[in-house]
Amino acid sequence: MSVTARFVTIEGIEGVGKTTQVARLSAALSAHGIQHVVTREPGGTPLAESIRNVVLTAGEELLPPMAELLLMFAARAVHLTNHVEPNLRSGRWVICDRFTDATYAYQGGGRHLSLDNIRQLEAMVLGARRPDLTVLLDTPVPQALQRAQQRNAGAAADRFESERTEFFERVRAAYLARAAAEPRRIETVDAAQSVDEVAARILKLLEARSWIS
Amino acid sequence: MSVTARFVTIEGIEGVGKTTQVARLSAALSAHGIQHVVTREPGGTPLAESIRNVVLTAGEELLPPMAELLLMFAARAVHLTNHVEPNLRSGRWVICDRFTDATYAYQGGGRHLSLDNIRQLEAMVLGARRPDLTVLLDTPVPQALQRAQQRNAGAAADRFESERTEFFERVRAAYLARAAAEPRRIETVDAAQSVDEVAARILKLLEARSWIS
Repeated sequence: MSVTARFVTIEGIEGVGKTTQVARLSAALSAHGIQHVVTREPGGTPLAESIRNVVLTAGEELLPPMAELLLMFAARAVHLTNHVEPNLRSGRWVICDRFTDATYAYQGGGRHLSLDNIRQLEAMVLGARRPDLTVLLDTPVPQALQRAQQRNAGAAADRFESERTEFFERVRAAYLARAAAEPRRIETVDAAQSVDEVAARILKLLEARSWIS
Repeated sequence: MSVTARFVTIEGIEGVGKTTQVARLSAALSAHGIQHVVTREPGGTPLAESIRNVVLTAGEELLPPMAELLLMFAARAVHLTNHVEPNLRSGRWVICDRFTDATYAYQGGGRHLSLDNIRQLEAMVLGARRPDLTVLLDTPVPQALQRAQQRNAGAAADRFESERTEFFERVRAAYLARAAAEPRRIETVDAAQSVDEVAARILKLLEARSWIS
């Protein structure tokens, strides 16, 4: 029985299976009797979702990259203050589909925004809070995009999912660079494996930290 | 005939007559044949207004002060990139009802947010851009709030206008501190004078800079 609530984030580009693995992890935690909530960024509360909607549906007016970055961190401040921190304080684990590493990867790597600016915003919004564990689901971009496209067949692609392969190559590279820089926090998992294999690998990461047994 | 487009901002707490003086200044510039646009913050474009609406209508969920600050600067980035800068480049003056000084006054002075954070965000979003002239309309808080309340009688007060006198005293003090620190850019005008007197004083500030004759 765990006594400390853990903050676990799942990261990766479109199509690597984040949503599926978040659901599998949630089911496994429930089987272990661990109270937890599942959430996502950008979004996670009604107010944060309304900020997310500004980003995703900017319409005909250009959303400057700096404005997008600030909206991401505004939504994150809402999500942290109103949802993540209260749950952790109450002893519930928080499993989050994307967090600040996604900002470094998408806005930094993908859109070439200044990493210094991202670091300043991270300090303002997160304070000392960091995920206890970040699982980076990684697979070559062509395979991931093929899966994302199959899933979205017939649906309207949002702004991010209509971006080009080259963009996602930069995002993936930024993710891998972060994993290399913070190997204790960020664990890279080969997402080309089967769903069962990936789910088992993630549980092993929790067992290795003695968070579950 | 002016050859350089000027960026003029009008600042002050609720009830000092900003909207009236912006309209008077616009009429005077038209009489001088000066092409210009009138705009406001937060807002100024449809996308920036949609961000403003998140701030003003957060509903039942708490909007953390840091999130409010980031939304303000996100709306400012949109407004600058999509409206202010293109107009200045085209030779049109921009007259703006509130700008970054309002963030220092309301979020810094009023809500006690870190001035260092505001300065970092100002550097990120504004780069080297600053108003060429800022007119601070100043009057003691009780007089200003009385005018604001008369104007809003019967209308639903928004989040900011329902704040307390003590809050506006802090906001006013922060405005005056900024004017003291940047006396060349920020001109304080006694807003207890008549509308005509205030309008004449503002025109004299432009004449003193040889922007109009």
